[in-house]
Amino acid sequence: FFSNSTRSRIVHHVLQRTNPELGTCINRLLGNNTYEAAFPPHETHGAQNQRHLLYERWARWGIWYKYQPLDLIRRYFGEKIGLYFAWLGWYTGMLIPAALVGVFVFLYGLFTMDSSQVSKEICEANTTIMCPMCEESCKPWTLSDSCVFAKVTRLFDNGGTVFFAIFMAIWATVFLEFWKRRRAELTYDWDLIDWEEEERDITRSVMSPPAGQRMSQFFIVSSVFKLCRLTISSPQISLVLTAVFAVVVFRLIAMEKFASFNWDFIQKNWQFATSGTGVCINFMMIMSLNVVYEKVAYLLTNLEHPRTESEWENSFALKMFLFQFVNLNSSTFYIAFFLGRFAGRPGKYNKLFNRWRLEECHPSGCLIDLCLQMGVIMFFKQIWNNFMELGYPIIPSLLQNWWSRRKMKKGGGGGGGGQNVENKTQLPQWDKDWNLQPMNAHGLVDEYLEMVVLQFGFTTIFVAAFPLAPLLALLNNIIEIRLDAYKFVTQWRRPMPARATDIGIWHGILEGIGVLAVITNAFVIAITSDYIPRFVYAFKYGPCADKRPRHTDECLKGYMNSSLSVFDMWELKNSSEFRYCRYRDYRASPWSTPPYEFTLQFWHVLAARLAFIIVFEHLVFGIKSFIAYLIPDMPKDLCDRMRREKYLMQEMIPQLSNRALSL
Amino acid sequence: FFSNSTRSRIVHHVLQRTNPELGTCINRLLGNNTYEAAFPPHETHGAQNQRHLLYERWARWGIWYKYQPLDLIRRYFGEKIGLYFAWLGWYTGMLIPAALVGVFVFLYGLFTMDSSQVSKEICEANTTIMCPMCEESCKPWTLSDSCVFAKVTRLFDNGGTVFFAIFMAIWATVFLEFWKRRRAELTYDWDLIDWEEEERDITRSVMSPPAGQRMSQFFIVSSVFKLCRLTISSPQISLVLTAVFAVVVFRLIAMEKFASFNWDFIQKNWQFATSGTGVCINFMMIMSLNVVYEKVAYLLTNLEHPRTESEWENSFALKMFLFQFVNLNSSTFYIAFFLGRFAGRPGKYNKLFNRWRLEECHPSGCLIDLCLQMGVIMFFKQIWNNFMELGYPIIPSLLQNWWSRRKMKKGGGGGGGGQNVENKTQLPQWDKDWNLQPMNAHGLVDEYLEMVVLQFGFTTIFVAAFPLAPLLALLNNIIEIRLDAYKFVTQWRRPMPARATDIGIWHGILEGIGVLAVITNAFVIAITSDYIPRFVYAFKYGPCADKRPRHTDECLKGYMNSSLSVFDMWELKNSSEFRYCRYRDYRASPWSTPPYEFTLQFWHVLAARLAFIIVFEHLVFGIKSFIAYLIPDMPKDLCDRMRREKYLMQEMIPQLSNRALSL
Repeated sequence: FFSNSTRSRIVHHVLQRTNPELGTCINRLLGNNTYEAAFPPHETHGAQNQRHLLYERWARWGIWYKYQPLDLIRRYFGEKIGLYFAWLGWYTGMLIPAALVGVFVFLYGLFTMDSSQVSKEICEANTTIMCPMCEESCKPWTLSDSCVFAKVTRLFDNGGTVFFAIFMAIWATVFLEFWKRRRAELTYDWDLIDWEEEERDITRSVMSPPAGQRMSQFFIVSSVFKLCRLTISSPQISLVLTAVFAVVVFRLIAMEKFASFNWDFIQKNWQFATSGTGVCINFMMIMSLNVVYEKVAYLLTNLEHPRTESEWENSFALKMFLFQFVNLNSSTFYIAFFLGRFAGRPGKYNKLFNRWRLEECHPSGCLIDLCLQMGVIMFFKQIWNNFMELGYPIIPSLLQNWWSRRKMKKGGGGGGGGQNVENKTQLPQWDKDWNLQPMNAHGLVDEYLEMVVLQFGFTTIFVAAFPLAPLLALLNNIIEIRLDAYKFVTQWRRPMPARATDIGIWHGILEGIGVLAVITNAFVIAITSDYIPRFVYAFKYGPCADKRPRHTDECLKGYMNSSLSVFDMWELKNSSEFRYCRYRDYRASPWSTPPYEFTLQFWHVLAARLAFIIVFEHLVFGIKSFIAYLIPDMPKDLCDRMRREKYLMQEMIPQLSNRALSL
Repeated sequence: FFSNSTRSRIVHHVLQRTNPELGTCINRLLGNNTYEAAFPPHETHGAQNQRHLLYERWARWGIWYKYQPLDLIRRYFGEKIGLYFAWLGWYTGMLIPAALVGVFVFLYGLFTMDSSQVSKEICEANTTIMCPMCEESCKPWTLSDSCVFAKVTRLFDNGGTVFFAIFMAIWATVFLEFWKRRRAELTYDWDLIDWEEEERDITRSVMSPPAGQRMSQFFIVSSVFKLCRLTISSPQISLVLTAVFAVVVFRLIAMEKFASFNWDFIQKNWQFATSGTGVCINFMMIMSLNVVYEKVAYLLTNLEHPRTESEWENSFALKMFLFQFVNLNSSTFYIAFFLGRFAGRPGKYNKLFNRWRLEECHPSGCLIDLCLQMGVIMFFKQIWNNFMELGYPIIPSLLQNWWSRRKMKKGGGGGGGGQNVENKTQLPQWDKDWNLQPMNAHGLVDEYLEMVVLQFGFTTIFVAAFPLAPLLALLNNIIEIRLDAYKFVTQWRRPMPARATDIGIWHGILEGIGVLAVITNAFVIAITSDYIPRFVYAFKYGPCADKRPRHTDECLKGYMNSSLSVFDMWELKNSSEFRYCRYRDYRASPWSTPPYEFTLQFWHVLAARLAFIIVFEHLVFGIKSFIAYLIPDMPKDLCDRMRREKYLMQEMIPQLSNRALSL
């Protein structure tokens, strides 16, 4: 079948399990543009066929609460896509307890918000004069002005957070360990036990040994090669860091501008305004850098001449992951661990380029900025992703359909192509599918990336700062599953079925994130949140230091006062109406000798913070590895079944061969 | 062949690769004492046979510097024993760089010992009066009395130690990663790639499903089962801890006794005397508990009804490892991390049972006790083990030989048995072998245990305290290899050859020790050694605090004085000739208000110690995992070769079968 259009449009009916040589041949023809596309056609519409069944039992919104028909998906799309949806479903299921606990922690914060001693003290402190927040235009302000801010901080920075961080670290371990078991069951059910990833790929590697292969015979070379590959990405990483730096500078400038804004509403809420605009600009930068980098990663991966399909995918995935991870999280890391640490003290502020004063944390704690950052990025990114997944493929296809209809009206067309369009229901299936979007070139990498980098990262890495992350992830995933299903069943050409026994490099990446999460959460609780200083105050300085504590909040009486140091504003030239102002630090008073040194309390808090990190990390990593040891990678009954089958096989084969010989 | 002794002595010539059913049958006959032993016979003596070759090329002392003939070992003893010796040889080879660096670090300590500022200050401090070390009989003493002690401490507690601890952590990783590659090569060369551990064992598991199998169908049950198994060992563990406690109490009593000893030499060196006798008693306890526990572990493992040989071995090995590890190391842990931490201060000492004052560290640091403990235990244990391996099997066999000769003299014997003894060279090989020792019941577990628990543990876990450990291990291993070889070739019956693709559970245990080593070394450097206090003093309090340091030792001027606090002895009833004495702590002076509080320096040092732990652990674990990522588990050329072979196989099989059909 050849149409008389200039380029021959040959759509090849590729069978489910192609002959590898035929596959190579088709790839070559696709490469030199003889073929325009090659794909297996969808099943034709009908009440009983699999595609219809998939739509009914999987891709409809109405059945969002049901399990996915995994066997059906596997039979229609192949094991690789089946495994992706199995993983996605498993992940979504596991998110339910995490989201529930997260909501409980959030509610705990919400209900104890008003009764909190710290925010009460802040709200009542209308005689406490705080030092000005910026150099020129700012004036001293009263602490009670930031009452709302303090209450919101308390919402996220309370004792439940520590518990939730430990819970989520263990949750991540349990999730991965049980996924291994689920995967083992699936591969057994799908008959993939003896199949190896390489089987499909061998042919290519033997037929076309790439140039780099000889070179990397020895270990040293191959290690150096790996190192090189890592350093290649460094320009991209430095690009990201520059972007983060730009955001930091923007925040510093915006802070001064907002604080001296004409509009009173903004001037009062300048902290929210700065953080808000900062996050939004950050988000836009993240999105645009992502678009650029995807192309770069694609090029780089092809330059590496990976030998097999799965090697290509793993290499591309690792690159994309590393980049997106750094891109998405570096400003969050800045806000969590660097913001407000190096601000200096009144009279001796550290300045960037000797011009902009570095940001300080709010008197009620540093966690609120992190929380805002997390919430905004997570919310917008998920909405954006879902829009891109649904809207982006639909709009071009609508346009295309409109275009072809218009062409049809203009005249009957010049040949076979026109004929086919005439009665659409009679079109052969491969021609109908031609009008659908091809599944994008990166396979499932994009899908995994979105889930792993954004979601799993956000639900574990900084979860101490934002306990609602698992809930947001859960809601997103429920939509995501049906959206992806809809896309795969109706919007995309049927992808080439591929086999896979696991989710590839993603498992290692998930485990890496799990480890990183423990470390970051330890640091967030110890350094970012005010949990430790409050704890130290309650048991060492507060009213409960000597007697047994009755209620934690009572022990915090006077905490706010003890956490603020005093500065003598008359030391500076521009003497104002108040002599002394307060700032958030543990420093000696101006009248002590030497003034402004760190007090004993500072060192107590520092030692407690560091000790907390050590205890938390060793405890959680200990629990993690103990759980991993307790949960076997394969369910016991499956293990027994496999053994028995193997034994029977070994018994049978000689018998069968004997019988065959005797015949 | 039946002798007329009361019990039939049937020695079965078991072939190298036994029929599994025959094997079961023989096991049953062995079980009900019908057979007394079953073993493959050694090859008969001769110039050309393999046993002779092995002796010549492997078991002689003269060739200690040569590589082992692994292929020969494997051919004669089977893959499992071959792998053990391959591992042992690999480990010994890897110990060479570790031992070299360790010796360099030791030499560095030795050469800078005399020029060290700290020991100089101690030796010159003949006017510094130290508080008495025990309650009743002790008197204040001058700091310069402990000059030798300080110099020895300096030998092990210097900057090189930190470097060496990092080096050894990385060394452990590199060792394990490269061993994986070596193992891959060996299994390829020995044709074990497709062989699975279970193949041999399947028959047993299917034939005799144990009682526990049904029960543990579900995950929860099997996890609980694992937990139970762990808790079963707790009585043994508590026994060990009691023993450690006994040693601690002994040390406390011994300290008082030695310090008030009549003999002046001992009274002066009472610290050495206490540590020395403490370690020796500890060593004896360790050895006797080991003997007891080996029997307990054997019983417990059999109670568990493991289904396969390798399961039995793994279970037994894990039990023995856990016990021996706790047994051997718990007192070392006590000395490293608890000794001297809870001693209290003069006038307010903490007492055990309100009677014995807890031990203090020596003014020059706590590391020396740990060092002594390590050195003594490692040295004696290795000598003991080598004696047991060589002496223990030889003495009974000498006795036995003597006994049979005596019996022979008494009368010609009653039958075939006597005949055989008459002309010994004509004895059938299996009868000669009957006189040899059987290889002990635990297979290679004991051999691995000794290497892994004692050696690898000591060369990594507390290596910061004792840089000579790798050298001791290396020397021991060079002897060990030839000793084992000699045993296997001439002293033991030929063991049943068995296959194995790896060293089993030991690899996991080695990795676990590698992780533990990083943690303990971080704590030893931060808490046990005086590296951090010296560092803090040098850069914050000493003469170099403000100006750039020229030489580290100069910056430590005055360190000794700053690290000792002052106590007013007149506060106590028994007023002595001196009013003030010094003790090792950072506390306020008696005339400050409040007295004896921790000073700012204490909190500085504490924060620095904790920060060091965090930095060290994150850094070293980071490097470790990066190295593990960089080093692929399989050499690249081996990987390629295997792929190519697999491809060729796949190509060939259809061709061959076609040809077979056409014939």
